[in-house]
Amino acid sequence: MLPSLTSLDDFRSLLAQAKGADQTAIDAAAARNGQLTKPPGALGRLEDLAIWYGGWRGTDRPEIKSPQVIVFAGNHGVTAQGVSAFPSEVTAQMVINFEHGGAAINQLAKLAGARMDVHALDLDNPVQDFTQGPAMDAAELLAALQAGWNAVDPTADLLVVGEMGIGNTTPAAALAFALFGGEPADWTGRGTGVDDAGLANKTRVVTEGVALHGAAIKDGLDALGCLGGREIAAMVGAIAAARLLHIPVILDGFICCAAAACLQRSCDGALDHAIAGHQSAENAHPALLKELGKEPLLALGLRLGEGSGAALAIQVLKGAIACHSGMATFAEAGVSDG
Amino acid sequence: MLPSLTSLDDFRSLLAQAKGADQTAIDAAAARNGQLTKPPGALGRLEDLAIWYGGWRGTDRPEIKSPQVIVFAGNHGVTAQGVSAFPSEVTAQMVINFEHGGAAINQLAKLAGARMDVHALDLDNPVQDFTQGPAMDAAELLAALQAGWNAVDPTADLLVVGEMGIGNTTPAAALAFALFGGEPADWTGRGTGVDDAGLANKTRVVTEGVALHGAAIKDGLDALGCLGGREIAAMVGAIAAARLLHIPVILDGFICCAAAACLQRSCDGALDHAIAGHQSAENAHPALLKELGKEPLLALGLRLGEGSGAALAIQVLKGAIACHSGMATFAEAGVSDG
Repeated sequence: MLPSLTSLDDFRSLLAQAKGADQTAIDAAAARNGQLTKPPGALGRLEDLAIWYGGWRGTDRPEIKSPQVIVFAGNHGVTAQGVSAFPSEVTAQMVINFEHGGAAINQLAKLAGARMDVHALDLDNPVQDFTQGPAMDAAELLAALQAGWNAVDPTADLLVVGEMGIGNTTPAAALAFALFGGEPADWTGRGTGVDDAGLANKTRVVTEGVALHGAAIKDGLDALGCLGGREIAAMVGAIAAARLLHIPVILDGFICCAAAACLQRSCDGALDHAIAGHQSAENAHPALLKELGKEPLLALGLRLGEGSGAALAIQVLKGAIACHSGMATFAEAGVSDG
Repeated sequence: MLPSLTSLDDFRSLLAQAKGADQTAIDAAAARNGQLTKPPGALGRLEDLAIWYGGWRGTDRPEIKSPQVIVFAGNHGVTAQGVSAFPSEVTAQMVINFEHGGAAINQLAKLAGARMDVHALDLDNPVQDFTQGPAMDAAELLAALQAGWNAVDPTADLLVVGEMGIGNTTPAAALAFALFGGEPADWTGRGTGVDDAGLANKTRVVTEGVALHGAAIKDGLDALGCLGGREIAAMVGAIAAARLLHIPVILDGFICCAAAACLQRSCDGALDHAIAGHQSAENAHPALLKELGKEPLLALGLRLGEGSGAALAIQVLKGAIACHSGMATFAEAGVSDG
């Protein structure tokens, strides 16, 4: 079990002390890979995935038996600025849909054999409109991080974190702009489907928010408090908990990757246990993945959130592990190795 | 049940008469897609996949319950020209590995819940070296097509065809060059791993083979007989049988797509029931997919054959169908639709 978080500095410190992957397991998995009945390199990225996963799980012949999908939901004061095509009520309606098994992520989690949990975070009390002040104060931020931190099942062997929060491509764009610079319009996009005027409005909101808070932002956690939301902070807490627990993570789309960016900008190496599951159709996701240094496994034009792209990518990782751990070696099969 | 094939013209004629997808089911599936609890288009290509699959299965709410993976194996006289990094004995050794469950495709078929069949086609009697004469005479070609035709389970609801045949990237490259033109070197690649000299040698062999047979090639079946191999012809027969049975097909890598090209060049629309599962690392596969007009679902650098990339892509299609058929509508879930 992980300790509770007593402060934001405690969170930073736990993360900085977290151990990396097991080099002995990586070496043993690489050696096994070289003996399997296939030409060298013929399984492409599946080979790298299996070795990476084995390193984090500490074994040369890993299995994926207990994936966990967690969906965090939060509401955003910034919707008062008209940044979304859907009303804020939809966040709570979709939480009920998740609980009843009717959403896309329910189907994809079930297909992947994953446990799915839903955490609705104080939906009746949206975080403050970040054009008016910090989205969360330190206590609110710590509580949201802790909610994510606590939500991770320590017995899980793979984690996907997803989100639902009407309006949340706007805080995600603001986080990316605050952390990586460029122009505000580099980071805004159409979300669930705003028109040209809606997109221009999102860009205005992001510009104003970062102008207001930029000077107060020293690292990823500062940015998260000023510009984020509870569901984004909970994803940060969950990804961090998985890092300490050596549970590999598959990142989802733009909002999940904005959360991941906050973590990366708080502590180098904090995302070494994470891969990118899917490149979404949201405008700035490719640029954000590039900043994270992650190559997505899938690019199928999804732009739904909920963890949907990452849950689909569980299947690719399962394929990689099934081949690596299940195939015969040249010696076992009596096949000539060229 | 399908009729037996009495001649190559009989095969051409059956294919030309085959019915297309069910437009009523396509329309109903598209209507259902528009009512599901997600922003319009937010599942990207998954939405198109589900509607396409429903059209071929004749229902607006399809399921995938019985996928079939078939691996065909054949040997090639052209290996006498030194075109492969592995000896021909490996074909039979790998067939035993498939039968014992030790190959990559075994793991991926199992993960996809697919039945897997292996057909070794007269391995002790390689097809003739196509630089010396036609690879197969008409009777041999018909027998190989029939082997594939018969191998398809009429109760399957999805088909993947894969292959094993030491040397078979060379006939595949020759087929692509004969069917689509360009330069021989546009279509050759490193296969399981030949060096620069080996690649130049493959290009020489392809050049010679197509020079010898080009004038005799009027359509895809002619090319298949002159330049193909039994496992490639069996894939053609199986994909054609699936077209008549309305069993959707996921195409695999370069060799599978060369087989598909023979079918497409025998009859327009013969691949309407097929999608591309994976873009392989073999040099000419992207160009071949472009000629087929197919956009791959995955691009993970595999270059193994066996049906491996397509078997992995079953999971993506299953994800699409699970969302489409399992999600709640806005009305069912009580969610506001914007």
